[in-house]
Amino acid sequence: MNLTGDERLDYLLAEDLTIIQSPSVFAFSLDAVLLARFVQVPIQKGSLVDLCSGNGVIPLLLSTRTKGTITGVEIQERLYDMAVRSIEHNGLDHQLTMVHEDLKVVVPALGWAKHDVVTCNPPYFLTPSIEEKNRNEHFAIARHEIMCTLEDTVKVSSDLLKQGGKAAFVHRPGRLLDLVTLMRKYRLEPKRIQFVYPKMGKEANTILIEATKDGKADTKILPPLYVYKENGEYTEELKEILYGSPA
Amino acid sequence: MNLTGDERLDYLLAEDLTIIQSPSVFAFSLDAVLLARFVQVPIQKGSLVDLCSGNGVIPLLLSTRTKGTITGVEIQERLYDMAVRSIEHNGLDHQLTMVHEDLKVVVPALGWAKHDVVTCNPPYFLTPSIEEKNRNEHFAIARHEIMCTLEDTVKVSSDLLKQGGKAAFVHRPGRLLDLVTLMRKYRLEPKRIQFVYPKMGKEANTILIEATKDGKADTKILPPLYVYKENGEYTEELKEILYGSPA
Repeated sequence: MNLTGDERLDYLLAEDLTIIQSPSVFAFSLDAVLLARFVQVPIQKGSLVDLCSGNGVIPLLLSTRTKGTITGVEIQERLYDMAVRSIEHNGLDHQLTMVHEDLKVVVPALGWAKHDVVTCNPPYFLTPSIEEKNRNEHFAIARHEIMCTLEDTVKVSSDLLKQGGKAAFVHRPGRLLDLVTLMRKYRLEPKRIQFVYPKMGKEANTILIEATKDGKADTKILPPLYVYKENGEYTEELKEILYGSPA
Repeated sequence: MNLTGDERLDYLLAEDLTIIQSPSVFAFSLDAVLLARFVQVPIQKGSLVDLCSGNGVIPLLLSTRTKGTITGVEIQERLYDMAVRSIEHNGLDHQLTMVHEDLKVVVPALGWAKHDVVTCNPPYFLTPSIEEKNRNEHFAIARHEIMCTLEDTVKVSSDLLKQGGKAAFVHRPGRLLDLVTLMRKYRLEPKRIQFVYPKMGKEANTILIEATKDGKADTKILPPLYVYKENGEYTEELKEILYGSPA
């Protein structure tokens, strides 16, 4: 196992997996974990793609839910490389592949309308100031629409998916309307939406949306997901997601 | 007080108001009550319009929250007439006016871009079968898109509103995407959304959406509203809305 600089090998929560993280470059967020649990996946086979894959957290987590093949796409070489080493370290090379590429040009290589599921935890924010960008370019690219826009990620998801295939995104409520409007523009019909609330009585701070390519208009709003209890501890539901048991 | 047929005079919940209802023609729903509480209104003055007003439940409830003038638009003469008599009976003629008109042609009379708030509890369902329609035409018109479509109600709301004015709708989750897409098409930007869940752990069955004319894209998802507790009683929050106190 080759760790460089401030990289560390972390346990991947509920799963019997490890992942390389680096506090100065990238560490996965709760949002990625929630998305990997939220999306509906084929169990026995199929082809899944994860866009904006970062250090590969979503492909790693999805590998516990499906026997299908999973391809992660990441534009930053440093993160791509961390993902590749994590996949090797977990012995998942037969199922998981990373592609170091700009998602905007990746469709011909991965195949048009060939995939069953696309997941994406995109950059949440619009273009940052020069100052922010200079402070840490790795974070800036992961968090801001520098290398790709929300529209790019939605369009590419649609191009990759078969008819009936599912695109699952996580984002902030402030972009809900942009996201669903773009989805409809690219033939992805939002079918399942779940809102994540930091605690009871607060506004939602995260949205999970799954859309079906060429699906019929009919949206379900799943029960709310609360992250923290009043006392600041994780809720039982979140412990179950994170640690695999409510204990 | 003139009651005809199976009409009855009901108390309007938390408020010191009464309303004429008729089980065979129209009785207001919880959705109307939730919408009348959800929408943000100017307190001291302003002009409010309620489309698809039925027996006038939303204007009556809004009269307790604003000193502005409120105009209800209802196409069914029988319901319009019930609303007019309820307004008289409550002594609210100075503040509330009913218009017996098709909402599709009401804008010239009410004025373009002159109003601060438009509320609408539209028909939820697409066109019914002939059989359903024959069974009870009053219900059929109130519940199905016979006399107006969702697009009609959104377009008219936008035409009536000033820049910065608010359109508040209640609908079913299955039409969320249609509603928000239409709102954007007619310059109404969804800003506040609240989902109503019958009880914890269930999918939402009602959505409340407030949009601002020519507003900036930035949606807030309010805390969920639960209707029933596990034991089948109303939640404290709902009792507060219905009866004015959690007792």
